[in-house]
Amino acid sequence: MEFPMSDQALPAPEMGEPYLLTPGPLTTAFSTRQAMLRDWGSWDGDFRAMTRMLCDQLVAMAGDREGAFACVPMQGSGSFAVEAMLGSFVPRDGKVLVLANGAYGLRAAETMRYLGRAHTVIDKGDYMPPRGDEVGAALDADPEITHVFVVQCETSSGILNPVAEISEAVYARGRKLLVDSMSAFGALELDVSRIRYEAMVSSANKCIEGVPGFGFVIARTEALEAAQGNSHSLALDVHAQWAAMQKTGQWRYTPPTHVVAAFLEALRLHAAEGGVAGRGARYTRNRDVMVAGMRALGFETLLKDRWLSPIIVTFFCPADPNFDFPRFYAAMKARGFIIYPGKLTVVDSFRIGCIGQLDEHVMRRVVSAAGEALAEMGVDSAAPPDAAIAERARLAA
Amino acid sequence: MEFPMSDQALPAPEMGEPYLLTPGPLTTAFSTRQAMLRDWGSWDGDFRAMTRMLCDQLVAMAGDREGAFACVPMQGSGSFAVEAMLGSFVPRDGKVLVLANGAYGLRAAETMRYLGRAHTVIDKGDYMPPRGDEVGAALDADPEITHVFVVQCETSSGILNPVAEISEAVYARGRKLLVDSMSAFGALELDVSRIRYEAMVSSANKCIEGVPGFGFVIARTEALEAAQGNSHSLALDVHAQWAAMQKTGQWRYTPPTHVVAAFLEALRLHAAEGGVAGRGARYTRNRDVMVAGMRALGFETLLKDRWLSPIIVTFFCPADPNFDFPRFYAAMKARGFIIYPGKLTVVDSFRIGCIGQLDEHVMRRVVSAAGEALAEMGVDSAAPPDAAIAERARLAA
Repeated sequence: MEFPMSDQALPAPEMGEPYLLTPGPLTTAFSTRQAMLRDWGSWDGDFRAMTRMLCDQLVAMAGDREGAFACVPMQGSGSFAVEAMLGSFVPRDGKVLVLANGAYGLRAAETMRYLGRAHTVIDKGDYMPPRGDEVGAALDADPEITHVFVVQCETSSGILNPVAEISEAVYARGRKLLVDSMSAFGALELDVSRIRYEAMVSSANKCIEGVPGFGFVIARTEALEAAQGNSHSLALDVHAQWAAMQKTGQWRYTPPTHVVAAFLEALRLHAAEGGVAGRGARYTRNRDVMVAGMRALGFETLLKDRWLSPIIVTFFCPADPNFDFPRFYAAMKARGFIIYPGKLTVVDSFRIGCIGQLDEHVMRRVVSAAGEALAEMGVDSAAPPDAAIAERARLAA
Repeated sequence: MEFPMSDQALPAPEMGEPYLLTPGPLTTAFSTRQAMLRDWGSWDGDFRAMTRMLCDQLVAMAGDREGAFACVPMQGSGSFAVEAMLGSFVPRDGKVLVLANGAYGLRAAETMRYLGRAHTVIDKGDYMPPRGDEVGAALDADPEITHVFVVQCETSSGILNPVAEISEAVYARGRKLLVDSMSAFGALELDVSRIRYEAMVSSANKCIEGVPGFGFVIARTEALEAAQGNSHSLALDVHAQWAAMQKTGQWRYTPPTHVVAAFLEALRLHAAEGGVAGRGARYTRNRDVMVAGMRALGFETLLKDRWLSPIIVTFFCPADPNFDFPRFYAAMKARGFIIYPGKLTVVDSFRIGCIGQLDEHVMRRVVSAAGEALAEMGVDSAAPPDAAIAERARLAA
């Protein structure tokens, strides 16, 4: 199956199932799921070749043209891969500056607490972006910090954090950057020739549009070599996984074979769509069509345009007392769309994802469904409460 | 699809793919794979209901009729679940006696080393079984030991370890048992009303015949409650996963949704086959037919009958200089059967699994293929070297 041209509607999901407008697991191509109809022996040469192909394609996607990086897949969810990265690349006597503006940054800090390793946090609250200058100041003030951790797209709010300026601040001071690109890699640029970092993580079921079951680390081989002996966990030891793969071509422990097969098909579709640029363009169009339509209904986004990612968008819940999120969720689901609850602590919100096998035609139907859901609940205006607008005013354009 | 009666041959795998005669990933039912053709939102109520069903059925399979146990699924391979169990149930000041007679026991000891927690090992070598009396003596000699870890079926050799007598020795001394039932649960009894333990682990892609992508812990709820704060890892914290599931019905981090859907279909087929007893009976018949056929060809098993599990069987490589394992593997694969290399350190061996969607008809074809492969290589006798027979003589009947 070739990826459909942009003037064609994507086929509806099979079996009448709803579209997943969530940050993953997401709606995948049917051919990606069909790739799971076969069993593979994980020790066999055929499967080892599949693993090699997967790693080679991911390293190429990161823009490595000098053979300086390697890919290490890791069983489990994305958070397993994040913990594996932190535990493996941060030496036991290292110290991490965690940049947090949402759940995923805070989870990284919690991970460091479990590891019992030194760390400090710049917590910007629900969504304010960490900026290069404040990262630089924090590094200047604390020479013990060896690594900085940043989330490229913080899906708690949908904000796109300024990774490039943070990377510059970090390396200008001789420190190292670790990037959580979970929900961004494959659609947003994280090219090693333009943005410097030691390692990044993402997972199968995000912008590459595979099904969930593993994550992966893409890291400098010199960082991988230096990672020996750092890990707090046998299962999550990125160095040991890498070393075993180098030696045998196999995953150390049983890989999710069917999920890997699906991912290879997803990679093929990703390339057919034009790689990172093509995928990112479709998601951007999804976002633009959906946000314009929702705004026309009276909804307001949490973020100003500059900070809106093409991954997931947070909307304020309407102030109208007839608005009830569980009813809104059910009304959207009845129309074939699964949306996502919000994560803001200050005001009520919900989120709509732009990623997966969705195109602008689907997004127009999402907007129509939202309009119908409002009417069903008797909500006259989707305008948010004044407190929400005041909250947003804190954010620079 | 109902499970076929025992006088019917199972259908050959789809698309001409080989049978996997390995300890998992294994050959699954086509309907199990078909269950992966749909996407699920992990936050949605439909998926939460699937998770609840999965946990309820697994607890019932463990024989809990008093509501004293709970099931906690864990993303990743089986080894992730083993590490999660060790890290979560062994207090930081606890000490574990690891019973090792193969790779999986040794891996548990390596896990304890990573965790930096006290442990001691009874290492019986490649396959000699740990016995209740020596476990008792070790516990008497070291009152600091709080937990004993045993592998029910050590697939390195295929031996079935005497878990019941070990459990008795452990609890007679007021210590606690943790069981790795990875390759056994679902086909061999580990009923909590007959064998006492605190927690056990297994995974989706073994005797329940799902596809790989998660493992699960079945534990006493009082042990789960006591596990708070023990874990060395956020991702692998069984208590935190359990507490979050109790509260929200969701997995803490993205579950492998398709793998979970496949597992539910696998559970349905498991029940239709007659549960643990029915599944175990088919595997036992698989083993008996296969071992008898291989012995008729001149092959000899590593283990005496008493210790042979119905999961996987180790055979000595023939002494004949024309026998070459890579050629044998390729000849078997060309005939549609993927076998498994051996793991013995003393003599050359290979393994043939009995689990997955295989029945005695398939096993007869496996034996025929082995005979053809021997002829192709010009091997006149499959008899093992004298050293192998001498090695086996060490094992009690």
